[in-house]
Formats: sequence, C-alpha cells, structure tokens
Amino acid sequence: MNVILFDRYKESDLINKMWVAARTCYSENDIRSLKIEANNIPIEEKLDLIKKVFKSGHLSIAEHISFTYGISGISRSCSHQLVRHRLCTFSQQSQRYTDLSKDDIDWIIPESIYKDEYALACYQEALRAIEKAYCYCVDVGIKAEDARFILPNACPTNITVTTNLRNLMHIMGLRLCSRAQWEIRQVFQEMQKQTIEQYPFLKEYLQPNCEQLGFCSESQCCGRKPKKSELVKIYKESQNVNK
Amino acid sequence: MNVILFDRYKESDLINKMWVAARTCYSENDIRSLKIEANNIPIEEKLDLIKKVFKSGHLSIAEHISFTYGISGISRSCSHQLVRHRLCTFSQQSQRYTDLSKDDIDWIIPESIYKDEYALACYQEALRAIEKAYCYCVDVGIKAEDARFILPNACPTNITVTTNLRNLMHIMGLRLCSRAQWEIRQVFQEMQKQTIEQYPFLKEYLQPNCEQLGFCSESQCCGRKPKKSELVKIYKESQNVNK
Amino acid sequence: MNVILFDRYKESDLINKMWVAARTCYSENDIRSLKIEANNIPIEEKLDLIKKVFKSGHLSIAEHISFTYGISGISRSCSHQLVRHRLCTFSQQSQRYTDLSKDDIDWIIPESIYKDEYALACYQEALRAIEKAYCYCVDVGIKAEDARFILPNACPTNITVTTNLRNLMHIMGLRLCSRAQWEIRQVFQEMQKQTIEQYPFLKEYLQPNCEQLGFCSESQCCGRKPKKSELVKIYKESQNVNK
Amino acid sequence: MNVILFDRYKESDLINKMWVAARTCYSENDIRSLKIEANNIPIEEKLDLIKKVFKSGHLSIAEHISFTYGISGISRSCSHQLVRHRLCTFSQQSQRYTDLSKDDIDWIIPESIYKDEYALACYQEALRAIEKAYCYCVDVGIKAEDARFILPNACPTNITVTTNLRNLMHIMGLRLCSRAQWEIRQVFQEMQKQTIEQYPFLKEYLQPNCEQLGFCSESQCCGRKPKKSELVKIYKESQNVNK
Repeated sequence: MNVILFDRYKESDLINKMWVAARTCYSENDIRSLKIEANNIPIEEKLDLIKKVFKSGHLSIAEHISFTYGISGISRSCSHQLVRHRLCTFSQQSQRYTDLSKDDIDWIIPESIYKDEYALACYQEALRAIEKAYCYCVDVGIKAEDARFILPNACPTNITVTTNLRNLMHIMGLRLCSRAQWEIRQVFQEMQKQTIEQYPFLKEYLQPNCEQLGFCSESQCCGRKPKKSELVKIYKESQNVNK
Repeated sequence: MNVILFDRYKESDLINKMWVAARTCYSENDIRSLKIEANNIPIEEKLDLIKKVFKSGHLSIAEHISFTYGISGISRSCSHQLVRHRLCTFSQQSQRYTDLSKDDIDWIIPESIYKDEYALACYQEALRAIEKAYCYCVDVGIKAEDARFILPNACPTNITVTTNLRNLMHIMGLRLCSRAQWEIRQVFQEMQKQTIEQYPFLKEYLQPNCEQLGFCSESQCCGRKPKKSELVKIYKESQNVNK
Repeated sequence: MNVILFDRYKESDLINKMWVAARTCYSENDIRSLKIEANNIPIEEKLDLIKKVFKSGHLSIAEHISFTYGISGISRSCSHQLVRHRLCTFSQQSQRYTDLSKDDIDWIIPESIYKDEYALACYQEALRAIEKAYCYCVDVGIKAEDARFILPNACPTNITVTTNLRNLMHIMGLRLCSRAQWEIRQVFQEMQKQTIEQYPFLKEYLQPNCEQLGFCSESQCCGRKPKKSELVKIYKESQNVNK
Repeated sequence: MNVILFDRYKESDLINKMWVAARTCYSENDIRSLKIEANNIPIEEKLDLIKKVFKSGHLSIAEHISFTYGISGISRSCSHQLVRHRLCTFSQQSQRYTDLSKDDIDWIIPESIYKDEYALACYQEALRAIEKAYCYCVDVGIKAEDARFILPNACPTNITVTTNLRNLMHIMGLRLCSRAQWEIRQVFQEMQKQTIEQYPFLKEYLQPNCEQLGFCSESQCCGRKPKKSELVKIYKESQNVNK
C-alpha cells in the first residue's frame, strides 16, 4: 500500500482561508478587507477563532479546504468500502480498460492468512488458478471486462481521492476506529500521518470518533473512551446524590 | 439476477406531487390550495405542465419522487460500479458479516466465458480452488472479512437502492447505453421495465442518454442516434447554403 | 404559516422497508425473500432491529424513506435559512415570475415588533412605502424581478420541500433547538407534529439534538440537558474517586 | 459588487492533478509513478488528454480541483439564488448576528429603477422608512434577527463560496446565460473573468450552456446558438434528402 498527499499548501494559507470564511458570517466588513485583516493578525488568534467555531459544531468553514490523496496497491475490498463515502471524488483504475495480465500481480493477502500455513497454501493455489484463467481469457481475446470476473478481492487497485476537510474529519472518525476493517484503517492512518505532518493544527481533528467526541458511540467499545451511556448514567447518579 | 421495485404508488399521486411542486414556483396560491386544485384538473393537463418543465431542463421537480429497488444476485463488479452513483442510497450485503461458506454459491459468469470451453474449464477450476480456500479459512476461524480476500468479482451480492427520479433519469441515461457494461445494463433494463409498467408516463424519461437528448454524446457511437458533432456540422452547412 | 405533510403512507410500510434494508446488509437471503419475511414478523421485532441499528449510528437505512412538506406563508428570511439544507429538494415560489402586487400581502411580522407600539408604527409606515414602490414599478412595466428589490424579508413565500428521513432527523436536531430562530423553529415544530401523528415510531428520532444525543453541544445551553463537557467532567471525577 | 478569487495556484499544478486523475483510471502504473510521469510530459500533451476526457462527458476528474470566491456587496435576492447551488459551500454574513444600523447601507438598486424617476423616488422613500424602522428596533433592544424582517432584498450581503471545477462548469453554464437574472449573471461574469485570467486553459469550459453544448436548451432563445430542436429538424431533413 502506498499513499501520497498531493498538494502541499502552506498551513497559514489554510488557516487564513477558514478564518476569512468564519469572519464572513459575523463581520460587517467586506471580504477584501477580511483578507487583508487576516494577514495582520497573529496565527494563534486565528486558530482560536477556528477552534471555537469547530467546537460549537459549525463545521461548514472546513468545507472550503480540500485535499487530494493518491492511494495505490489496496485491495478491491478496500476500494469498494472507500467509494461508499459519497462526499468524496474518486478516479479509480478500471478493470474494464486495464489489462492486468502483463505483469505479476501483487495480491493483497491478510496477515491472518499468512499465519495459517494451509490457508496460505490454499490461497496460493487459488491465486494460481485465477491467474491462469484470467490470462487465458485475455490471450484468446475475451474482453478484460469479462475476464476480470475471476479476479479476487485480493486484486490491487489504484485510486485518486479528493475530499473537503469537513468530510475528511467525518470519515477519519469512522475509519480510524479500532472496529474499522484493518486495511481501510491502515489507509486512513497513512492519510492522517501525512496530513498532520504538513498541517500540524489538524492533529486534534483527524482522530477516531471517540477522540473527536470524548466518548465511544459504537455498539462494541475498545475501552479507549467510555461509552456514552456510561457518561449519562454516572451524570444522572451524581445528580441524584446532589439532591 | 433479480430486481424488485418496492413501493407501488398510484401514478396519479406522483403526477399530482410533481404538478404541485412545479406550480409552487409560479403561482400566487398557497400549497394547500394547489393540492386541492391538483385534484380537480384533468391528468393530461398536469402531464402537459410537467413535460414542459422537464423539456426546459428544470428537472428539480423530479427530485420530490423516490423509488426503491431490491437487486439480488449481481456480481461484486456490478455492485462496485453501482455504488459509484453518489446520489443514491445503498444498503448492501456485507462480506465482512455474512458467511458465504454455508451454501453453494451461485457465481455470476459472463456469456463470453461459457462460449469458450477451455475458458470455462479454467474458470471452474479457479472457482473450486476459491471455494476450498474460503471454506477452509472460515472453518478454522479466520474471520469472514479476511477469508473474503479470495472471493472473486463473480461472487453474488444483494443490494437495496433508493434514488430520486431526477437522478434515476440521469443514471438510466448512462447505464442503458449500449456502451455500458452488460451486467449493469441488464440491471437497469429490469429497473426500467418494472418502473414503466407501474408508471407509464415515465417511459420517455427512462431511456439511454441518446434518446433523452436526441443525439449521442459518447466517443464511440452505436448508430442509434447521430453524434452531436454531425448535427452541428449539418446545421452549419445548411446555414451556408441559405446565405 | 401553514405546513402540510404530503404523502400519507402506512407506518408499517415504512418499517418494513427499513427492516428489509437493514437485513440486506447482514443476511444471506435475497431481497425477495426478505420482503416476504418482513410480512411474517411482528412489528415490534422489526422495530427492535431498526432501533438497534439507529443506536449504533448506522443511519443510512433511514435514507430509503422520504417525506414531502408544503410550507406556505413563511418569511423570505426563513426560506433563505431553509434552503441552506443542501440535502433537501426545494421548489420555491419565484419573486421573478410571480406578481405580488395583485393582492394584499400578508407580511410576516415578529412578535417583538408587535410588543413595541412605535416599532410597529415604523414597520407599518415602511411596509406602506414598500407596497407603494413595488406596485408602482410593476404598474409601469418594470419587471417583477427588479421591482422585488424593495420587498422585505417580511414578504411571505411558499415552498415545497422533500427530504429523506436521515436528513430530516439531522435538521430537526438543529432547528428544534431553543437556539434556532423562532420562525424556522415553528416550521419544524409543525413538521414534527404532523410527521409523528402519522408515524408515531418516529417520535424519539424527530427531536432537538440534545434529546437525540443525551447532551447539549451548543455553545450556549438552555439547561434542558447537561453540556457534554459536564458529562465528561463528572465522569472523570468519578474515575478518580474510584481509584 | 466585488468578487475575489482566493487561491492563486499555478495553472500547471491544476493540469497535472487532473492528468494524474485521468491516468489513474486507465493506467497499470501506480500513482506515485504517474505523478513523476506528469512532470516529464509536455503540457500540451496533458491538456490534450484532459480535453478528450471532458469531451467524452467524463467530467469527474474536474472534481479534484476547487476554487474559493469572496463575493461582497450583492443583494439578498442574489444570495438567495446563489445558495440554491447545493454542491457549493457557503459562508454568508448573518443578518441574525450582524448589526447593520451602524453605517450607511449601500443598497443594491437595479438600473431599471434608476431609469424611472418616480420609481426611484418611491424606492428612496421606502428605503428611508426601512432604515428608520430597522435602526429604531435595534436601538430599543429588539434583536437584529427580528429587526431584519423589514430589510429589503436590496440589502447587501457578503458570502464566501467554494466549489469544485465540475460544478463550476455546470453553474457557469446556467448563470452566464442571457436568461439568467442580471445581478447573478454579473457575479458569474466576474468569477469567470478572474478564473480565466489565472487559468487560461479553462476558457472554453467556463461559458454559458449554449457555448458548452453547441446549442440552446432554454425555452426562450437569445439567438446566440440554434435551438436543439432546429438542429434535429435540419438533420432529419438532410437524411430524407439523401434517401
């Protein structure tokens, strides 16, 4: 798996843009003036406003910022999950128009398979049979779009993804959770790492849901944060004690 | 493959709703009055308004109508294409939480494979190896979410899809085209058939793009309609002749 | 202000549809079988599944259900807020193509204005001047689209709105909050009332955010529910006590 | 009215990004390699691919590019139209939280009003009455959110707008049309001018619908391009002649 964050903007440009957007809502000044103002205010002050706005749940200013990622060598299982995020834009390698018979395919195989010797042997046998079937079909002129029906989820794919920051915060919340499937979680961990390296102020916003919320809202909890029902229960108990 | 149109509304209810929405934009009357008016106007008159509005490209009134389809037994290739339509809602059978090892799997195999005896033999050999690998993994307690990496595109899936009529017209335009991949085209032909049976007035709107537009906008044309460039060329020639 | 819920489906139809959508994800059965199954299961059992799915935050099944509302006689301030909900469909009375000079206009005037005699007098004087200017312009043939520049926010408008249930839960959460502006809150209270009357099982989901969440996430809290920060604080204290 | 294009990226960066996205779909190479390849290919060659992809109607690669505009001093009529574009992000000056009584308001008044002396006099009288009512209300402590009900469409507003290039092409098509309302058309003409100045390759894509399509699809046509029905008619005649 290989992930690249495309554009490398200056962190201050992103902060300025969100600050101007936030100020547009509450200021009498026109936007030209706000842009000039943005250049004359310390960055901490601008970050304070942005954090306050985010904290009160008004996340729309984060939609003015977008990031593009190039993701290569993930399984088709993973891409099938990924493209379900309907507020992203995707450009994905087509199995209809790409001929995968030319090179050795770098199948994606879960660790749990590697750990069981016989499972791995079965996998390898099946993958050999798959390659044989696929290559034969392509060789005799059956279209790639039909030959590919034998290709497994383990087949690698490449995908270019763009999303705005608001949606990125949302999907990071879901996919960095310990309950997310391991491969898509790895993709988001890599996206998170590169994005925070370039834009350190985003660190607190690109986290699993429980870190963003302060509690866990999953039905099964890893214990990193208390469940919401626990918070509410303990709060109610404390209210009864105080009566 | 099996497709079901869920709700069976009365055609007149759909027409009334779109007529009220269209009239909301241009009438001084409030919506309660418009609803009463709708009941007292001949259906042809209401259809005339709707068709006129559609013809002038104002398709938003079609967003007030939604349809739900249950689609079973399509390949994962097909569902991967389908879920790319970001204005639809999908509830899809999960390969993480469903164990497919219990029954015989009804693989989806393209006709082009059946036509080549050796291709079919290779396919069947690969499918046997896949079933063996998948079932072994599940048997020894490897999670379905990992075992499934060996499952091929040919694996069947079920999906419940909801879309509004505006988006349905758009995606029918794309997927009924002769250039669409055969399986997803079959899905849409079945959706088209059942929807038109229930709502005959939709016949002219649930058609491939070229029928909706009057010309073909694909790079490769099947000849059913002229290409747009041809229309423009002949128009220009006629203008020169008239000079 | 006048609100109408358009379609009056059977509650059981909505429940069946969401149950089938939820089961699609986790069942080996095809959707035709699930639809038959839905008819043979007690409604409580189906509701239990839906509530469990909602509770774990998987709200997408609620997107398969849509409602349409006709809203008449709200101010243009209110409609300008309303149309910001980008996942709804709107058909709104046009001030470009509707001539409002024919009848007496039923201006929307806030209660706070009625309570101050002089404010009301100023309002009435301004409204007379506005009517005079608007009617003169229309009379001499200036287009309604230009004459309307003098029309105030107090000007009434009609709008037909469609949204799916997931988005409805989201916007009810925002607009039923005591911090929402009074007019749009009234609109949503009326939508809430009619929707719950028709579909009682929706009562717990069409509530202000704090009721849906168990805590308040606004920066200013009305006291109906504790703020999230309080919950977290008391939880942390209780953890320290237990050590 | 005042429009600012926010970010000033290099044109070549935009072209590279769309080229990589387009190539992702049809190439066996991973995205890292495609990014390197992009740097070694002449810009004309990259533009050729992008234009070919656009021409065949596959516009999704244009969604990877976003632009932000600051628009100040437009009427509330104009902003009410603008925010109907649901694929944009908006941060708009709030009339609830901004007090407009402090300064002279720079009302937006259509030219057609200026041309009729008495219309202008009526307008000015009404605007004076409006200012008086608004300022009195704010002075006596009535909330701005209520005082504003008397503010007219002519009231100026500021708004920060972000959209991806695909949607920008779509809304330019609608709003640059001679049938669009004059104020929003001016906004888009200014957005068009600044965007093309910075990114000349976008010139052919940021045009009214008829220029993008080659024909007019409006019900009333300004004559700049022939109507689609004319194209089809002349084509059919030419086919009959050839028989």
